[in-house]
Amino acid sequence: MERSPDFSRRRLIATGPGALAIVGLTGAPRVAAQAAAPVAPAQAKPLPAYVAWKDADSLIVHTPTTIETKRTALGSSGITPTERLFIRNNLPAPDVSIVANRDAWQLAVDGVRQPRTLTVAELKTLGLESIPAVLQCSGNGRSYFPSKPAGTRWGVGAAGCVIWSGVPLQAVVEALGGPVAGMRFITGTGGEKLPDGIDPRTVIVERSVPMTALQDALLAWEVNGEPLPHAHGGPLRLIVPGYSGVNNIKYVKRVAFTRDETDAAIQRTGYRMSPPGTKGDPSFPAVWEMGPKSWINSPAAEAGPTKAGWVQVHGVAMGGMQAPRRVEVSLDGGKTWRDAGLIGANLGRYAWRPFVLQTQLKPGTYTIASRVTDSQGNVQAEASPDNAGGYLNSGWRAHATQITVA
Amino acid sequence: MERSPDFSRRRLIATGPGALAIVGLTGAPRVAAQAAAPVAPAQAKPLPAYVAWKDADSLIVHTPTTIETKRTALGSSGITPTERLFIRNNLPAPDVSIVANRDAWQLAVDGVRQPRTLTVAELKTLGLESIPAVLQCSGNGRSYFPSKPAGTRWGVGAAGCVIWSGVPLQAVVEALGGPVAGMRFITGTGGEKLPDGIDPRTVIVERSVPMTALQDALLAWEVNGEPLPHAHGGPLRLIVPGYSGVNNIKYVKRVAFTRDETDAAIQRTGYRMSPPGTKGDPSFPAVWEMGPKSWINSPAAEAGPTKAGWVQVHGVAMGGMQAPRRVEVSLDGGKTWRDAGLIGANLGRYAWRPFVLQTQLKPGTYTIASRVTDSQGNVQAEASPDNAGGYLNSGWRAHATQITVA
Repeated sequence: MERSPDFSRRRLIATGPGALAIVGLTGAPRVAAQAAAPVAPAQAKPLPAYVAWKDADSLIVHTPTTIETKRTALGSSGITPTERLFIRNNLPAPDVSIVANRDAWQLAVDGVRQPRTLTVAELKTLGLESIPAVLQCSGNGRSYFPSKPAGTRWGVGAAGCVIWSGVPLQAVVEALGGPVAGMRFITGTGGEKLPDGIDPRTVIVERSVPMTALQDALLAWEVNGEPLPHAHGGPLRLIVPGYSGVNNIKYVKRVAFTRDETDAAIQRTGYRMSPPGTKGDPSFPAVWEMGPKSWINSPAAEAGPTKAGWVQVHGVAMGGMQAPRRVEVSLDGGKTWRDAGLIGANLGRYAWRPFVLQTQLKPGTYTIASRVTDSQGNVQAEASPDNAGGYLNSGWRAHATQITVA
Repeated sequence: MERSPDFSRRRLIATGPGALAIVGLTGAPRVAAQAAAPVAPAQAKPLPAYVAWKDADSLIVHTPTTIETKRTALGSSGITPTERLFIRNNLPAPDVSIVANRDAWQLAVDGVRQPRTLTVAELKTLGLESIPAVLQCSGNGRSYFPSKPAGTRWGVGAAGCVIWSGVPLQAVVEALGGPVAGMRFITGTGGEKLPDGIDPRTVIVERSVPMTALQDALLAWEVNGEPLPHAHGGPLRLIVPGYSGVNNIKYVKRVAFTRDETDAAIQRTGYRMSPPGTKGDPSFPAVWEMGPKSWINSPAAEAGPTKAGWVQVHGVAMGGMQAPRRVEVSLDGGKTWRDAGLIGANLGRYAWRPFVLQTQLKPGTYTIASRVTDSQGNVQAEASPDNAGGYLNSGWRAHATQITVA
């Protein structure tokens, strides 16, 4: 997979629809965003105009399309305010005019007995549900992999827990007669405008997830109580709770029940769990479900030295597909563990939950780590398998942080 | 109780510390904000500068210190974004400079075995909890009372459900040796700067709540994952979950365990459930716990006519002190009822929860109402007792709304 370290070119690709032509000129990158996202140091860059409404102090701007939440800005309330939620786009967004009349946005539904196109206004007559869920970039934690995979060097903050509201995909499918027999995948297609002159399959944002995801999938028009912002996929986004970011299709314009996975590059070769240095292909597992993961948000080195004495060590813990049940915290890099307490409300199987351990710390240096167990007994791994794309890193050892107590 | 309809005077009182002197000049209103808040029509006024960061399109500005969330802006996610949360202040706020160094804010704790003053930084070492809870102005729904009580004519939107994070008051009290024996109330004092020349007790924001509230009371520095905004009481607010707005002391500078209720006017004569036309006094119940209440957010007349056909009738339901268990919806003004479905996560006993009823509506006019039953079997009343202050209106009949289906 080609990955250019040319920062100015990356900027061009990232900054707007006009720049799309550049992608065409450079040939046919299999996954445009992969090609366009080499190691980017976390410098203090201003927020790009399209997300000027976000809370700049809470965010790290890697590039205009890769913006991370600071560890210390993840809070202890369990829900991530939209102003602090990370941004990661695979292609330049469609024109912002699509949110001028949200109810007019159209979704084609195929692979059902009565395929048809519905407006958001029509979708709003079919059902209403609300689901708290972690939204996490597939590459969150990439910077902690030993093989140093190319791509945005996310720490912990390409993740947030938000509440999505919209219509259950199941309700829409039922209204259209149900899926055609024999379908095995739900394939969602994003409405990004594609560059001219290159094969759409090489860049289109189109993902397939197993039919089992139909159970809780949502066509969302609202996040955290507000109309879904354009930067996060408004007017309509396909939410597949428990699945990593890329599977949650922004500006979704088509949902199809399909016999096979899409042959879009982003599915066929991109977002595959292939060993470091190899190219992805369909023989490797797709990046789909997230697993148990937790990390410490405070104390954090980025906030400076911690004062000796009583300290509330807190962070967030998710099960991925199951609610967290138990969190342990280590202050000595994993040699010994103590049970932390879960706080706040249990927001369900797809949400994360804040945890806290009250302890006394003497001056010194500590390596603090956390380890979650979900409601099914699945324990956060000590190390996640390193892989070429740097995906799904949830290893507790790699996520441990060092703090100084003075 | 004197209530001046002079709008320009009300504006002066409301707009800044300099205007405080005006209060002094006018004599000694028992509860300044009561005196200063007669009927205010919901005109389209701009947001005042101190809350310019709020979402103007979601809000109705009654006065600069009384700002309501539109019914259609309450969303279906269960949590109210802070940008949409209502505002109601009893006195002009302390200078905004108090949030420049949040950790330095000081809280005096009295009526405990080891009384002392703690900074927010110190409070942060004592514990951490997170509680979703409805924040509702005591006068929310006032405009629906038949006696037309004076005061801001709130509809449904002087309420929101948010997540507070901070230290449990119980943890602070335990660290200070526990309450002195015989104390029956928790008395919180706000840090508003008081006008010179008048008896502080006539205007000070100081409230007493029963000791039973200690169980879940929180000293909060965060709301919805962000540092508590100054406009909502930052750097520190006493949260008494389940109790109406006035009991949740902004800029809290003192918490004391006391044998008796404070004799501040806002407690002694203000916020009492006295009959229409009477003055409050301690013989009438204080405005404390909230009860079961629900209302419809959509369809709503403010959004224009509803299209005939399938409709998702949705709203929010709270138990006050207990989680909602059941919601019924009526489309004929309370003659017949149908069970609605609760959606989203159960955020606990103090939160509200969205509900939805899917139905088909033919063209016509409908009076739609909702009625909640909490987990203890308490049912939302058909009518709340009318009272002089217009407090705690939760009657389902008064909250019914008329819509047109075309």
